[in-house]
Amino acid sequence: MKLKLLCLALAASLSVPCLADRIADEPIKPIEPAKITEPQKVELGKKLFFDPRLSRSGFISCNSCHNLSTGGSDNLPTSIGHNWQEGPINSPTVLNSSMSVAQFWDGRAKTLEEQAAGPISNPKEMALTHAVALDVLRSIPQYRSDFADIYGTQEITLDQVTNAIAAFEETLVTPDSRFDRWLKGDDNALTDQELAGYETFKEVGCTACHNGAAVGGTSFQKMGIVKPYITDNPAEGRVAVTGDDADRFSFKVPTLRNVELTYPYFHDGAHWQLDKAVDLMARLQLGRELPKSDIDNMTAFLKTLTGEQPQFAIPRLPPSTENTPKPVPFAKD
Amino acid sequence: MKLKLLCLALAASLSVPCLADRIADEPIKPIEPAKITEPQKVELGKKLFFDPRLSRSGFISCNSCHNLSTGGSDNLPTSIGHNWQEGPINSPTVLNSSMSVAQFWDGRAKTLEEQAAGPISNPKEMALTHAVALDVLRSIPQYRSDFADIYGTQEITLDQVTNAIAAFEETLVTPDSRFDRWLKGDDNALTDQELAGYETFKEVGCTACHNGAAVGGTSFQKMGIVKPYITDNPAEGRVAVTGDDADRFSFKVPTLRNVELTYPYFHDGAHWQLDKAVDLMARLQLGRELPKSDIDNMTAFLKTLTGEQPQFAIPRLPPSTENTPKPVPFAKD
Repeated sequence: MKLKLLCLALAASLSVPCLADRIADEPIKPIEPAKITEPQKVELGKKLFFDPRLSRSGFISCNSCHNLSTGGSDNLPTSIGHNWQEGPINSPTVLNSSMSVAQFWDGRAKTLEEQAAGPISNPKEMALTHAVALDVLRSIPQYRSDFADIYGTQEITLDQVTNAIAAFEETLVTPDSRFDRWLKGDDNALTDQELAGYETFKEVGCTACHNGAAVGGTSFQKMGIVKPYITDNPAEGRVAVTGDDADRFSFKVPTLRNVELTYPYFHDGAHWQLDKAVDLMARLQLGRELPKSDIDNMTAFLKTLTGEQPQFAIPRLPPSTENTPKPVPFAKD
Repeated sequence: MKLKLLCLALAASLSVPCLADRIADEPIKPIEPAKITEPQKVELGKKLFFDPRLSRSGFISCNSCHNLSTGGSDNLPTSIGHNWQEGPINSPTVLNSSMSVAQFWDGRAKTLEEQAAGPISNPKEMALTHAVALDVLRSIPQYRSDFADIYGTQEITLDQVTNAIAAFEETLVTPDSRFDRWLKGDDNALTDQELAGYETFKEVGCTACHNGAAVGGTSFQKMGIVKPYITDNPAEGRVAVTGDDADRFSFKVPTLRNVELTYPYFHDGAHWQLDKAVDLMARLQLGRELPKSDIDNMTAFLKTLTGEQPQFAIPRLPPSTENTPKPVPFAKD
């Protein structure tokens, strides 16, 4: 309180608003706006992110399942892949994914670059070979020129492609949520209910896993610590990567940033309502049966984590040429 | 030439560039930028155009097949619909579609509004019922508020939905192509080859059908006037609307605006190369076998019809609520 009075006095003398900086004390940190140091690479990555020619069908782009109009996710339990195949697991949001310790629910990709290569050639997702993807890009003069400008070679490689996509994805952060404004000292940014929800969120132990700037994404945890999670989804999580039986049903803790937009929830996408998801998490992970008022407050708090969504013009993709491998939307293998 | 000298003298005295106005004399007219009189309606229409919740799967939006990153088309012979069904006909570009005499290849929709209602409920396309589509929109507070602001009622109707989508589509015009700059008097806008191509385009008779601001879209014509068009596609065209046998294989003349971007060509999307398409048209519609130089020149001219593509920020779609009907991506009927 003394600090606040000091701040008020100082602020008055300097004619600036008094903002108490809570950042150091809180387990959640604010998201800073993206610093774009290589704008041309980001622009190229954006084009690639939206280019359906990176799929066998010519129909599916990164943005199909990580839709930047809908919180960087597809809002489906599991995604639709090539030939309408059903995906095995919920598509995580691409928003703030650069802050994750690793990529995919089981963390099998260490970097955004490594992740970006996966869906392109996954036969259940975009179903193209990397070789054909590169042939597509190499056949298009504007892409050739973009890559040459950025990477200084006439060659286009998979590493360059994923590097450019990752550079774009690194810009997909969502600063300036109401919660971040409160973190930075704006007392009016949150309602009493939202603040109460945040206090409960910390008290009951949610921040043990959901912490940092992304409010998650920093560790792997067992889904169903206290009580088992009931699901039809056969995914076993991190054990697939480590081979360690202790990692069975261990998944990357998802970010709660923009969670209002990224339903349905959990790795199986089986739960659509945020309050139900909060209630279930408290029961399964913390062994707590919380009163409805606590659940409602925490749900209200979580909605303050919706930040400024990426704003950019839809990219204009360069046309194919007669040398561009044609999409194969309907041929069955 | 006299006029040009007069113009030059006048321009010099007024210190403005001398631009010969060719508009009155030419069969192709320039595209003017969209005049947006109801910006809020356009914004709503844009959201609806990009909203995959207007499909049964929650995966397909208007933009899926009329992709504004790729010339307002999907660059596939025929489109991919619900459950990966193969569409019956090539998806025409939405760009400049407001200038067409009617919508769809057979002109079965008189207006953009009437067109917009079609794919939403077509079981081979978005496969949602209009009733569920309206339930989706009514369940989302931001949509309710948008519709109330624009249409002054608490109700959301299909007419309002298609009216808003059409309002957005009316803005999807592509002014300021190099050809339009030439039309408006900029002598340097076209190369000699492009001009020669345009002269041939007129001389051999292409402008009989491909005329006006959209360079097409104003009439229905038989596909294969002089020689029959060979295709596996069973579409019979305009006869399905008029019942008149004379309209068999008659289709709406497609716009040639942005034709560089809207491959593959013709109602069956069977031809990927613009020069091949030009050659085929000359043979089948005009009975002309043109030298390669003419074909090349006309192809060069056609690429000058690529205009300024719509530039706008990707829309941010409002989240669903617990009352929003859920998408059904995988259930088989």
